[in-house]
Amino acid sequence: MRVTALAGGTGAAKLIRGLAELVPPSDLTIVVNTGDDARIWGLHVSPDLDSVTYALAGRLDVARGWGLRDETFNCLDAVGALGAETWFNLGDRDLATHLVRTERLNAGEPLSAVTAQLARRQGVASLILPMSDDPVRTRILTSDLPGVASGWLDFQEYFVREKASLAVVDVAYAGASDATPAPGVVDAIADADVVVVCPSNPVTSIGPILAVPGLVAALHATRAPVIGVSPIVGDAPVSGPAGALMRARGLPVSSLGVAQAYRGWLDSLVVDVRDAEFASALRDLGIASVVADILMTDHAREVALARVVLEGACA
Amino acid sequence: MRVTALAGGTGAAKLIRGLAELVPPSDLTIVVNTGDDARIWGLHVSPDLDSVTYALAGRLDVARGWGLRDETFNCLDAVGALGAETWFNLGDRDLATHLVRTERLNAGEPLSAVTAQLARRQGVASLILPMSDDPVRTRILTSDLPGVASGWLDFQEYFVREKASLAVVDVAYAGASDATPAPGVVDAIADADVVVVCPSNPVTSIGPILAVPGLVAALHATRAPVIGVSPIVGDAPVSGPAGALMRARGLPVSSLGVAQAYRGWLDSLVVDVRDAEFASALRDLGIASVVADILMTDHAREVALARVVLEGACA
Repeated sequence: MRVTALAGGTGAAKLIRGLAELVPPSDLTIVVNTGDDARIWGLHVSPDLDSVTYALAGRLDVARGWGLRDETFNCLDAVGALGAETWFNLGDRDLATHLVRTERLNAGEPLSAVTAQLARRQGVASLILPMSDDPVRTRILTSDLPGVASGWLDFQEYFVREKASLAVVDVAYAGASDATPAPGVVDAIADADVVVVCPSNPVTSIGPILAVPGLVAALHATRAPVIGVSPIVGDAPVSGPAGALMRARGLPVSSLGVAQAYRGWLDSLVVDVRDAEFASALRDLGIASVVADILMTDHAREVALARVVLEGACA
Repeated sequence: MRVTALAGGTGAAKLIRGLAELVPPSDLTIVVNTGDDARIWGLHVSPDLDSVTYALAGRLDVARGWGLRDETFNCLDAVGALGAETWFNLGDRDLATHLVRTERLNAGEPLSAVTAQLARRQGVASLILPMSDDPVRTRILTSDLPGVASGWLDFQEYFVREKASLAVVDVAYAGASDATPAPGVVDAIADADVVVVCPSNPVTSIGPILAVPGLVAALHATRAPVIGVSPIVGDAPVSGPAGALMRARGLPVSSLGVAQAYRGWLDSLVVDVRDAEFASALRDLGIASVVADILMTDHAREVALARVVLEGACA
């Protein structure tokens, strides 16, 4: 069974760790958000690509949800001592990924080729695809930037530097209209037996993927069932700033809001047992609901939820 | 007493640690070779600038002669695991220097300004000047490059990657003819009370400095005494590949060869007690010899040699 997953960061990495236990590596393709890629110390950092790669390589710091296990931060400390910005936590071993990526991008290789090389070198046999080789950058319009009436921030400035503490007025995907899907992305959606939308922030993790021209059309066109997992339980995201971002986009902060963001092409949505009440509202949107315990608090639960997803898709 | 020192790498760092005990920081200026600067993983590495800065900051790994004390190499290991080149040993804390330097150079700041900022941040009050803000690159023509009849290598490729094991045919300072001295360099030589040529390789450490148009003229013109310390004892360099490089330049591998390289503007040369015999040959070149134990095997000897240098210059 060929499975293609659309993925953002933390929650996606967990579900993918589960899917990897059930799907042979060569049958698993992950299409990953690059909207929150950033330049840190002149290096090209791709947080979501790395989280997915590290997860599949068994190297992810699962407790933290980002970066590498057994990491050290000696370079970061030294950069701080030299007076440069240190709000983005780059570990010493993680830095190697960004150094190698940046050097190869600067040599003219596309991000998809670099990502494939990095994954292979880490022993990952599944195909990890950036949504696009073109730069798409999620930008956040905030209303209480200190000392400024309002302003557009890069996603990592909003999320990491400002700790998602500013009021969000709007979200934009800069560059999206000129971007094309990376090689293999449209085919991976078209040729899949199941398409999975991971439990990622619908606005800043899945939203940038959907903003790449051609991807929503591919989701409409695929004959595969498309099943999502809600990143929301009740009225609160499992992690991260999805609430403020969904509100800024006019979406209710609930599994219903997630369903609204994906309406038209999503066939079914896995919602938490506490959200079974949304079944009829989802049905009105043409989306079947699958009720499950969606909190992935350990690896067994990651695998269990992945099984629910695959069975739910084929139900 | 204002002291200006011309410096390369390991030997220079030792003498400068000694000079720093005798000269107030604000009276000590170091003009440093940048001919062996290199791009490693896309980063601008300035080995000699860093050795001098780390030495004056008390951060140098004295035993190794390069890099930082108490260093870790986790990034380097991870870069190797990703399949990139690891022949240049960059430590995790040392990396911070190269990241910050590269980002500021890419933003358009000159190397001299970046060097000054990095030194200040490390608590160094002496003035550390790159010989030039323009790129000058020492290149080595070798005759037994494996699989190739001969070829030009960047200095670090020859010195670190090939461990200085190849036969040297010629040495060039690419870019030197178009370079200008960094701001302050000519004045530092003109206004000094003593100019010191550190015990560095005369071909690839001091040679690139002398190749910058205007610097030999400044050494001729200064009213300060110019005193050197030989990096050679008997017929062998204290460290490094100076022998092969001096031979390629037609210089005898001895303190006499060092004197020949600096003839015309060097007033005196500190030679080892084992080389007292060169006194009359040096005198024929117009260079006075100062005989001392020049091996700096511990910090007390670094200071003792620095005292010999300052007293010898003013003799």
